[in-house]
Amino acid sequence: MDSRTTAGGPRIRIGMVGGGPGADIGATHRFAQRLDDRYELVAGVFGQDPEASKTFGAGLHVDPSRIYPDAETMADAEAEREDGIEVVTIATPNSSHLPLARIFLERGFSVVCEKPLTTSVADALELHRLATSAGVVFAVPHAYSAYAMVREAARLVRDGALGKLTLVQVEHASGWASEALERTGHKQALWRTTPEIAGFPSVVGDLGTHAFHLTRYITGLELEEVSADLSTVVPERGVIDNAFVHLHLTGGVRGALWASMVATGQEHGLRIRVFGEKGSLEWRHEDPQHLVVRSADATSTTLAQGQARLSEDAARLTRVGLGHSEGFLEAFTDFYSDVADALLARRDGAPFTPRELSFPTIDDGVLGVAFVDAAARSSSASGAWTKPSVSLADLHSREEARA
Amino acid sequence: MDSRTTAGGPRIRIGMVGGGPGADIGATHRFAQRLDDRYELVAGVFGQDPEASKTFGAGLHVDPSRIYPDAETMADAEAEREDGIEVVTIATPNSSHLPLARIFLERGFSVVCEKPLTTSVADALELHRLATSAGVVFAVPHAYSAYAMVREAARLVRDGALGKLTLVQVEHASGWASEALERTGHKQALWRTTPEIAGFPSVVGDLGTHAFHLTRYITGLELEEVSADLSTVVPERGVIDNAFVHLHLTGGVRGALWASMVATGQEHGLRIRVFGEKGSLEWRHEDPQHLVVRSADATSTTLAQGQARLSEDAARLTRVGLGHSEGFLEAFTDFYSDVADALLARRDGAPFTPRELSFPTIDDGVLGVAFVDAAARSSSASGAWTKPSVSLADLHSREEARA
Amino acid sequence: MDSRTTAGGPRIRIGMVGGGPGADIGATHRFAQRLDDRYELVAGVFGQDPEASKTFGAGLHVDPSRIYPDAETMADAEAEREDGIEVVTIATPNSSHLPLARIFLERGFSVVCEKPLTTSVADALELHRLATSAGVVFAVPHAYSAYAMVREAARLVRDGALGKLTLVQVEHASGWASEALERTGHKQALWRTTPEIAGFPSVVGDLGTHAFHLTRYITGLELEEVSADLSTVVPERGVIDNAFVHLHLTGGVRGALWASMVATGQEHGLRIRVFGEKGSLEWRHEDPQHLVVRSADATSTTLAQGQARLSEDAARLTRVGLGHSEGFLEAFTDFYSDVADALLARRDGAPFTPRELSFPTIDDGVLGVAFVDAAARSSSASGAWTKPSVSLADLHSREEARA
Amino acid sequence: MDSRTTAGGPRIRIGMVGGGPGADIGATHRFAQRLDDRYELVAGVFGQDPEASKTFGAGLHVDPSRIYPDAETMADAEAEREDGIEVVTIATPNSSHLPLARIFLERGFSVVCEKPLTTSVADALELHRLATSAGVVFAVPHAYSAYAMVREAARLVRDGALGKLTLVQVEHASGWASEALERTGHKQALWRTTPEIAGFPSVVGDLGTHAFHLTRYITGLELEEVSADLSTVVPERGVIDNAFVHLHLTGGVRGALWASMVATGQEHGLRIRVFGEKGSLEWRHEDPQHLVVRSADATSTTLAQGQARLSEDAARLTRVGLGHSEGFLEAFTDFYSDVADALLARRDGAPFTPRELSFPTIDDGVLGVAFVDAAARSSSASGAWTKPSVSLADLHSREEARA
Repeated sequence: MDSRTTAGGPRIRIGMVGGGPGADIGATHRFAQRLDDRYELVAGVFGQDPEASKTFGAGLHVDPSRIYPDAETMADAEAEREDGIEVVTIATPNSSHLPLARIFLERGFSVVCEKPLTTSVADALELHRLATSAGVVFAVPHAYSAYAMVREAARLVRDGALGKLTLVQVEHASGWASEALERTGHKQALWRTTPEIAGFPSVVGDLGTHAFHLTRYITGLELEEVSADLSTVVPERGVIDNAFVHLHLTGGVRGALWASMVATGQEHGLRIRVFGEKGSLEWRHEDPQHLVVRSADATSTTLAQGQARLSEDAARLTRVGLGHSEGFLEAFTDFYSDVADALLARRDGAPFTPRELSFPTIDDGVLGVAFVDAAARSSSASGAWTKPSVSLADLHSREEARA
Repeated sequence: MDSRTTAGGPRIRIGMVGGGPGADIGATHRFAQRLDDRYELVAGVFGQDPEASKTFGAGLHVDPSRIYPDAETMADAEAEREDGIEVVTIATPNSSHLPLARIFLERGFSVVCEKPLTTSVADALELHRLATSAGVVFAVPHAYSAYAMVREAARLVRDGALGKLTLVQVEHASGWASEALERTGHKQALWRTTPEIAGFPSVVGDLGTHAFHLTRYITGLELEEVSADLSTVVPERGVIDNAFVHLHLTGGVRGALWASMVATGQEHGLRIRVFGEKGSLEWRHEDPQHLVVRSADATSTTLAQGQARLSEDAARLTRVGLGHSEGFLEAFTDFYSDVADALLARRDGAPFTPRELSFPTIDDGVLGVAFVDAAARSSSASGAWTKPSVSLADLHSREEARA
Repeated sequence: MDSRTTAGGPRIRIGMVGGGPGADIGATHRFAQRLDDRYELVAGVFGQDPEASKTFGAGLHVDPSRIYPDAETMADAEAEREDGIEVVTIATPNSSHLPLARIFLERGFSVVCEKPLTTSVADALELHRLATSAGVVFAVPHAYSAYAMVREAARLVRDGALGKLTLVQVEHASGWASEALERTGHKQALWRTTPEIAGFPSVVGDLGTHAFHLTRYITGLELEEVSADLSTVVPERGVIDNAFVHLHLTGGVRGALWASMVATGQEHGLRIRVFGEKGSLEWRHEDPQHLVVRSADATSTTLAQGQARLSEDAARLTRVGLGHSEGFLEAFTDFYSDVADALLARRDGAPFTPRELSFPTIDDGVLGVAFVDAAARSSSASGAWTKPSVSLADLHSREEARA
Repeated sequence: MDSRTTAGGPRIRIGMVGGGPGADIGATHRFAQRLDDRYELVAGVFGQDPEASKTFGAGLHVDPSRIYPDAETMADAEAEREDGIEVVTIATPNSSHLPLARIFLERGFSVVCEKPLTTSVADALELHRLATSAGVVFAVPHAYSAYAMVREAARLVRDGALGKLTLVQVEHASGWASEALERTGHKQALWRTTPEIAGFPSVVGDLGTHAFHLTRYITGLELEEVSADLSTVVPERGVIDNAFVHLHLTGGVRGALWASMVATGQEHGLRIRVFGEKGSLEWRHEDPQHLVVRSADATSTTLAQGQARLSEDAARLTRVGLGHSEGFLEAFTDFYSDVADALLARRDGAPFTPRELSFPTIDDGVLGVAFVDAAARSSSASGAWTKPSVSLADLHSREEARA
């Protein structure tokens, strides 16, 4: 099913845990499930207050009998139904991801689980064990990698347009929490600055993992070691809110990554530059429908979403024409659309080989947590170069051992 | 209903005529009906081939019994049903708008009708008569005026941020048809270069009316006269593909408008600058989530969608947070959301006063056609200043006479 | 002499009339004479107050005996000297250009004369007669055409990179006089809003001629007719301060030109886009070291001054390396450097064929005045298409008749 | 002396060592000495080949008798003359700075010495000893700090516009040597990749010291320690060509600095962002006449050189008007103009207090070398946080001890 046709096709039954009143990311998931019309939201636990959840879910046209008081009840009930959900979205704060995902994985449901996956590598590996044992689809919404022009970037790298890669500079430096919002009752700021919920390296998990995933996605390279300087800029804040990290990637490629929630005055601040022997590319989230490619002589070429010359990887994620920007919700929809392909194959029992450039999985989620952990350890060790405690090869070994 | 909550609420039953296989704009309408979950597409005629329409509609989850062979059959059948459509979208080439809209208006349906409304002023006035007599909601999707930052621009002007207005420079200059696509079988290019379907001043109706409406929407000014230079750039093309137009607006404000489908190399090319005694503003469709405001000393200030400081007119049309761009589909959804407010009020029989900044109506559609007509007449008369044959005041008189 | 070497070579003896205390443009001329070290300022009348002129000239290291009370005295005295000036710069308000230039031309001096050349076509033709009869170098500092990347643009057009030209959009829309500065004693604003000095169409002569010359320079096309809307935006101002002009150029190419001194909030506001069948280009004065070239599929390529791939026309005007911007003073120096080549050839009595892309001459100055005149006549005639009263072919005929 | 008047005043007699045929930076120095007409180049050693130097110098209008075979001869001869040079520019490769400067300092000449000052901290301290003992003017052309808008940035920080500073991100990442130019005979590339001449950390000294100085200049903060990752990207290159460096600045401010000559496709690549509790600012060398200031709510305000609202620190370095860009040569001229103020005061024996924001001195040069040295030591020590071996306070102590 090509999302560009918008001509529907079968819908997937989906449920949601979290994403109740006031939860921005829950709304984003629902917009994204809806836009291409490939999902039907049919069950949920919309927050911890059962009454509020009922009211909220009813507004979403969910059958009241399928709005549940808690995840366990939901999982049990849906497992009973002929028309039960096929997949659940977990859109709750970080520390609850493992226990909630466990409930659904143990009952054989596919899962879309928010990032960072967990607040420790051990928990991430436990989730990896649960997900791979269950044999279901497990997707992690690093949705920035689903922008058409990010896909084009990844394609150009794989096709050798930049030559051998040499350097990466990536930043996800937002100014959203440059003031002590957590002391004003701001819900997002509150949990993201509570170490027990967000994890102590907070911004590294929240924004750093996006920058890190984007780097891996576009370059196809893995992390070998990090040297990090994590700090807390806002006085009395109990978590890390700024991280400068040096990266050593596969094959000696050097990188610099910056994750921040205190880059005062910046909007979302996600931007990546990848350099190779023959050229470089740049993509900025504030202008997502363009991709800049630079040649060795500094000629700068801007490609635009919707051009006929783009690869199928970008073209299949384009809904409108050239010059009609598609934004964050469309990228999130792209993510869900790729997940839908996998879920439909699973429903049909068909053999499914994901495209080379598709959605992030449990592996990506675990590696994100390993990145956060290594950065925190390096920073504590005066910036000493530190290896992540788990690699993609390790995960593949575990998966093979399990299969 | 605040679209930002995404918490649903009642859905409106909508039908569609046109927008079948390969029709980009039909897909756009459906994306926009879906995103905020305020519409349910329940009936339609998806193109002129009944079989293809059936297949296509089924893919959209429309009940096969409500996929009709033609508009008249559809209007009759839906008028019979308890759960019939409340509104129909007409997404067909220009020359069919009047006959199709007539069918639905005469049966009391509300209508969303594509632009340009008609290919002659006489037809536009006939449609105006039909729409105002029917007393229904009649909306014209100049959706660019529904971008949050366009609304902010209109609000700033009304609040006097620029002082007394002085000048406007607006362009909708795309390069999409800088080659003779119509000779390659390109469907869009084919009908848009056929004078009987698109109207002879083609690009003035297609893109010029958007630029013209955007000008009126942001400035609140009306057209007094035009001096135009219309031309055909691509050899052997049977319609106008480039238009340079000078404008005299209310109160002596001067303007320059450029509509083109042959601005080789430009993307969508919609951009407006409005100048006043105290400052100016600029909005560009290629970067729709920003608005630039310039002061008399040339300090340039960029506002961003999602900022707390923006007006309610912009804020209510913002779904995600600062730095997460919303694009064309979101603007189109904004348009549909404003229409939904009017339709729900109508359903409830409640008195309804549209917001000051809301969706374009039949009046805007008629004035767009009058602009096209005046530009064509001026160009034929060596650029002589030419008044439009109908004004907003004229339309109001007709409406009052009818009420 | 390649300006890039900066290795000097012979210097030309130059004088100046005007450009005394407080005259910005005089300072610009001197910066430009100095930067490449190809001129030596040795004589002058620096303003109308002889005492102030003396003091000012002394500060410039001009020999006090060569600071003169008026132009006639200067011309006579310098004509007597062995080491007298070879060329004079006339940097005074518009209406004085003809009488001052006459003085120097009649004594056989070469002239650099500010624009607009004169305030009437008759005066311009008289100046043309004087200059061509004298057989000297006569240069008009439309210095914007001397930016390296403007030269590159002109080269690309001549080399067919855009294919057959189709459209031009050009603007020189500044906000510098959006307030009634002339009522605050602002010297520049005062004379530019006095019709007897600046000419009634003021801004058309001041900024419009730059935009017009840039159009001719890059495209190589001549003006056939104009349709103009000239207006006065600032209340009680006695001259035109905004001009929207439609152009018909050689071969049916259409253009739109905007000249304004009331585009509130804009900086200098000079920008040109040229379109052809195969592509387009854009150059903006606010970012002069780049040139954007767009292909038919909307791929946008940015070239940068200093790249090895640029033509000799751009390369020879580049002093520093890639990424080191050269600005207005460098462009003005480029102009003077091209004039120096002609003056040195003249000094040596060598046959001199100017490069294809070189400095603007008396012809360009006259055609600028003819453009202003035609625009004013068209605007008075309700925008009727109006031919300029003199063309390049006419000037060539006169020159041949004279030779 | 206000450079804006361009009305001259006394000229300083200057000599040059280096900067002969093919040396770009030599030409830059000469352009900058000339533009404001405050210097007269009267003596020199233009490269190591005496014959070529003679020819080259003659082209520059230098009296042949004052074109010397070597620096020592020049210094001796000029010291003898009544009208001898007052200051000498040393524009040679890094390793020769100390011996050449010593020659002139010991004879009491003021010095403008290229950066990096030396290739070791010991040498830098020796130069510091010589310069402070001589009691002359010693200036180091980190000319980027002389752009008007960089001065405005420094002024805004000092005036508290950003509140307490928190973060810095700065990069000077050019792509000029992303290919192995040194193997093509490229003169610049050759010496900059020879460790004995350029120093092993080459790019850190060449571009890193500019980024480092710009950081200190704008923020007013000093370096406490660095954690660095230096690498060689181009195979077989004998020096460092890429450096990612983390900074700890005064008062806990964190920074990330990137210096590169292998950022393929980037032009000059100098850019700085400074963040504070209340706002941030950004300046980019590719658009030097603008300064972007961002408020905590992400409103982005662009200031432009030439605006009346700017500080005297920027205004006094502005030659032309708003919208007329001034580039690298003007910034370099600003540097020389500030040096001229000091030299004239010295000539007159007048007490001289430099402005708060003026030219970089020997101290800045030494601290640049200490930065290079600390970065190299940190990188060798697995990125361990490393203190520079000399601080500004140390230099002040030495100066006081000496006085």
